[in-house]
Amino acid sequence: VADKIVLVGTGLIGGSFALALKKAGAAGTIVGVERSGEALERARALCIVDEGAADWAAALQGAGLVMLAVPVAQMPAVFTAIAPHLEARTVVTDAGSTKSDVIAAARAALGPRIGQFVPGHPIAGAERHGPDAATPGLFQGKKAVLTPLPENAPEAVERVAQAWRACGAQIHTLSAEQHDAVFAAVSHLPHLLAFALVADIAERPDADLLFQYAASGFRDFTRIAASSPEMWRDISLANRPALMRELDRYIDRLQALRTALEAGQGAALAAEFDTASAARKAWGRAIEAAEPRPAPRDE
Amino acid sequence: VADKIVLVGTGLIGGSFALALKKAGAAGTIVGVERSGEALERARALCIVDEGAADWAAALQGAGLVMLAVPVAQMPAVFTAIAPHLEARTVVTDAGSTKSDVIAAARAALGPRIGQFVPGHPIAGAERHGPDAATPGLFQGKKAVLTPLPENAPEAVERVAQAWRACGAQIHTLSAEQHDAVFAAVSHLPHLLAFALVADIAERPDADLLFQYAASGFRDFTRIAASSPEMWRDISLANRPALMRELDRYIDRLQALRTALEAGQGAALAAEFDTASAARKAWGRAIEAAEPRPAPRDE
Repeated sequence: VADKIVLVGTGLIGGSFALALKKAGAAGTIVGVERSGEALERARALCIVDEGAADWAAALQGAGLVMLAVPVAQMPAVFTAIAPHLEARTVVTDAGSTKSDVIAAARAALGPRIGQFVPGHPIAGAERHGPDAATPGLFQGKKAVLTPLPENAPEAVERVAQAWRACGAQIHTLSAEQHDAVFAAVSHLPHLLAFALVADIAERPDADLLFQYAASGFRDFTRIAASSPEMWRDISLANRPALMRELDRYIDRLQALRTALEAGQGAALAAEFDTASAARKAWGRAIEAAEPRPAPRDE
Repeated sequence: VADKIVLVGTGLIGGSFALALKKAGAAGTIVGVERSGEALERARALCIVDEGAADWAAALQGAGLVMLAVPVAQMPAVFTAIAPHLEARTVVTDAGSTKSDVIAAARAALGPRIGQFVPGHPIAGAERHGPDAATPGLFQGKKAVLTPLPENAPEAVERVAQAWRACGAQIHTLSAEQHDAVFAAVSHLPHLLAFALVADIAERPDADLLFQYAASGFRDFTRIAASSPEMWRDISLANRPALMRELDRYIDRLQALRTALEAGQGAALAAEFDTASAARKAWGRAIEAAEPRPAPRDE
């Protein structure tokens, strides 16, 4: 059944989702919703959407699947906008980087129809964003994490899972709390750390000298610091409790390293570095086997 | 004049230096000094050195240039070993990642002949190490930083600079203090941060779950955490004063971010991220223009 799909947000993630579904023949009409006519026009020119909608009512009429691919801070407004027009057969999902806050927004707006919302998060991205960065292969071989709610019918979860499989993604299931804790540790905290390092260097009087001698290690370490400031502000706030736990933990760890360094405890430093080096090598081999690496890119 | 060159340490850096000089026709006989006969045999098999030396006296007899490419912690012992055999015409240089401590070791061992030592540091490397990782192109287009001493004759500095130019490197000059401060900020601290992050995750009961969801941002951010624990222990201790200043600064910065996060100050977070993102993009463009990127590699 080629369902009508409503795409709210036609940037990198939403655009790639639409292009992948089209390529797989898994989409009927794709209707785009964007904040500006200009953005919508660009999405149409790139064949991400087939048409725009005059209003939310028109967009949602007869929709099988609604994908919310907007920054997490915009989710509450979007849920409020769609709630009055949501038909009983429509399944809503999202691609937000945090889940507890998006679920809370959905519950507040959808009330007893919360079972129609299946929360999701594809683990793919790039430093580039916007519809021009969208590509049908973005999710190929990547993970799509679903964090189903107790209220979700199995058929609703399966409809979302099918769409992601059609995009080439592997379905993983976590609780929302697990999801947010995991990504605070392996994604949100590293972004914060990279931002902090680059901002600190950039604000110094001798920033030019410092940047001049930064080499390939610095390049890799700080690549994520080129990410969208607004998106990461929103993610940081949306996942604040888990991110603060990770940040506190990490500051404690740095304090311990500082103590070891000050005392000249070479063995303690070597133990820390050795734990990290062995784990990173093992992880590198595992990820390399599972996902051949695309070429990195800077903006 | 094809000088006799003594290579102390035939691993990634020393080996690549020798192979590059040979390729450029800028080396006479290259004599290797290694801690084991096995390592020396491997260097000979890989054509990194032409011959081994029976002892320090034989190695140094008639040498034009001595390259010390051993971990910084071994430098004091090496200077002590070469001091009694150093001829007046011989210039000694090194490839150590820190400079103040190596210079102190050289002064202690060489005394009034300190002018024969020209400190250096090529800004190139790879996660892999050892002679098998050596390649003649390692320094092509990269920076070789020299931190000349007041006692160095211009001819001595020029002899070292010529060798690095023959390897394809660009010569940069800094004071040892500048060098150590710069690299504490753009290299040593990032390594410490990446090691700390990976070690912290690796030690958790749910490490497998966390690593499973780590994606490309984590991969790039933590690539340097696969580096040699022993080498980075030595660098951390060798550059302790500058590294502690950087670590303290960075912990302060994280504390400020934590405060902003706790207070939900989105504008402060966005300002930090924006400063970083703009600076990282500008640096990425600059470095991309100056040095085309090689493919990244994990071990």
